[in-house]
Amino acid sequence: MSYEPRPGIPFDEIDTPALLLDLETFQRNVDRMAHFFADKPSSLRPHAKTHKCPQVALQQLAAGAIGITCAKVGEAAVMAAAGITDLLIANEIVGPTKIGRLTDLASTTSLIVAVDDPDNVVALSRACTAKGTSLRVLVDVDVGMRRCGVLPGEPALAMARQIAKAPGLEFAGILAYEGHLVMIPDAQERAQKVRDAFAPLAATCDALQRDGLPAQIVSSGGTGTYDMTGTCPPITEVEAGSYVFMDSTYLRIRPEFESSLTVLSTVVSRPTRDRVVTDTGMKAITKELGWPQPLDVPGASVRSLSEEHGTLVLEDSASVRLRPGDKIRFIPSHCCTTVNLYDRLHVLRRDVLVDIWPITARGCAQ
Amino acid sequence: MSYEPRPGIPFDEIDTPALLLDLETFQRNVDRMAHFFADKPSSLRPHAKTHKCPQVALQQLAAGAIGITCAKVGEAAVMAAAGITDLLIANEIVGPTKIGRLTDLASTTSLIVAVDDPDNVVALSRACTAKGTSLRVLVDVDVGMRRCGVLPGEPALAMARQIAKAPGLEFAGILAYEGHLVMIPDAQERAQKVRDAFAPLAATCDALQRDGLPAQIVSSGGTGTYDMTGTCPPITEVEAGSYVFMDSTYLRIRPEFESSLTVLSTVVSRPTRDRVVTDTGMKAITKELGWPQPLDVPGASVRSLSEEHGTLVLEDSASVRLRPGDKIRFIPSHCCTTVNLYDRLHVLRRDVLVDIWPITARGCAQ
Repeated sequence: MSYEPRPGIPFDEIDTPALLLDLETFQRNVDRMAHFFADKPSSLRPHAKTHKCPQVALQQLAAGAIGITCAKVGEAAVMAAAGITDLLIANEIVGPTKIGRLTDLASTTSLIVAVDDPDNVVALSRACTAKGTSLRVLVDVDVGMRRCGVLPGEPALAMARQIAKAPGLEFAGILAYEGHLVMIPDAQERAQKVRDAFAPLAATCDALQRDGLPAQIVSSGGTGTYDMTGTCPPITEVEAGSYVFMDSTYLRIRPEFESSLTVLSTVVSRPTRDRVVTDTGMKAITKELGWPQPLDVPGASVRSLSEEHGTLVLEDSASVRLRPGDKIRFIPSHCCTTVNLYDRLHVLRRDVLVDIWPITARGCAQ
Repeated sequence: MSYEPRPGIPFDEIDTPALLLDLETFQRNVDRMAHFFADKPSSLRPHAKTHKCPQVALQQLAAGAIGITCAKVGEAAVMAAAGITDLLIANEIVGPTKIGRLTDLASTTSLIVAVDDPDNVVALSRACTAKGTSLRVLVDVDVGMRRCGVLPGEPALAMARQIAKAPGLEFAGILAYEGHLVMIPDAQERAQKVRDAFAPLAATCDALQRDGLPAQIVSSGGTGTYDMTGTCPPITEVEAGSYVFMDSTYLRIRPEFESSLTVLSTVVSRPTRDRVVTDTGMKAITKELGWPQPLDVPGASVRSLSEEHGTLVLEDSASVRLRPGDKIRFIPSHCCTTVNLYDRLHVLRRDVLVDIWPITARGCAQ
């Protein structure tokens, strides 16, 4: 059923809605982030939840990333099948079916996983022992986000000790995502709050060291905080993801990266002078962080997205000549959820389609 | 990479997040809507944008639906490949690539398509003539939604005349979706506004009749208005979609249908007494119409969805024994966009997995 455009065509001949990736901009983003970490004590382990695409992960690794972060076992399985080793699943993996899939995968590749519950530690240990495999395990510590995780200090220490004693498991360190801070608009405030959030974690890591349980890995950070978290002891690695593509939300606070990802749309109707309707609705671009931002249409803004249509209004409708069949590109407000709607990235060089990368882990929410 | 559960297992052994369909409830919904139309002058042509699944469409047709409505060429191609004929694409199909795909498909199955632009009529006619195929064409009329469409009266008449004269095209009637009315909470107000919206359309249809261009098809309606629109002249067929699954939004205004679709989740963390975190975030259940509604957890409500997690708060946390590994089902607030995140429906009969239906048109936004 699926339509595949022929490489070599100009981008505006690709059928729509379609996800476009500008290769050179993408590579500049990859290199810029890699360059930042080149002389830092911490390292980059980019998050694959953003792109779900082995081709992107391989470019990140080639630029110096030490491994790949995943959100789900299914994503890690896709990355492992592409030959990528040293995978961190930055999440709790719970329940017999999923733990079975996790330990199957651990038999073929090196996996790191997070825990925040003593029963889960027992279940992981039993599954590893039964299968003759092992897992490296991080204690998920809540540094203020109030999602998963145990608190710093004694709760984190107790869980580290439990892991260290559990057959089949190796205590490898701490996962501590400051997701509540990554989008604070003011950079100084963001940096200060990052330092404040990680102060108790530093004390916990010192106590672990004294206990003979050094945290080899302390994983944290996102595109909004990579330079703050990445230079904040005791962080050893940063999980930034969105920097490869960027979106209108992160572009506002991270101007050092560029927009490499757009959604190509077709105008399907211009029923009135001031109204333009595209074929790109909520099933082709997400809106939970705001409206998509149209490129190269002065005075145009999205007024609404329905399932299959996007409606734009025009400030100065007389000067905009858009007609049905014309193409418009949009910068998504949230790249991660938008990419998860598509099966492929159309890779462009100087506006010509040069490759198609399958988004192999699209929909791998399990 | 994908994990496929073995039919015969109880639903709570299916890995999560997973889309569950209760077969008997689904079939009651299908039959109830078919029964409504059995003695009405109008017919049911259900919208496949909701389910994107040929197995669902085939049950709708078996119950008496006269054909299937699609939003996109890609969806229609999936339905046609499953042997389903008489497909209405309730949308403008614009641009050479997409018109090429449309006319390719029209060479193998009977297609109806909508237009609202004279240049698009010319392009469709040329493409049909060049390929030696034909299309049945509806004029898309704006009855107040202010998305696509020409206005009732002279603009609609002019376009009908243009279609009737265009080689390769057959004027087949009107598309007039009252999408701005389908969710009005008060049923009486909704019914009155439906009557008001369609009054000018009735006059347009009378004028078409006098012109010797009778509208064989006047297509409209949704789950929120099926009984109002379906009994309102000049409507001949109704495009309702969501009634097969229902969601918490439509359940509030359409209690005669039942919730057949849920998302199965696993609790991955209970870091505090009053906080429960699941593995079901925005990539597994959508939130544009509201939070997912948890089943069988008294006093629980969703507080937030991040990409990969859902966080619930509990009113009476002491009485809720949920632990990591426990399963929770959610009713989505919007079934159509949630289904589009998944590759398969897990079909249950009395809580046992009896079949897996591929959501073959998932992601077919082109």
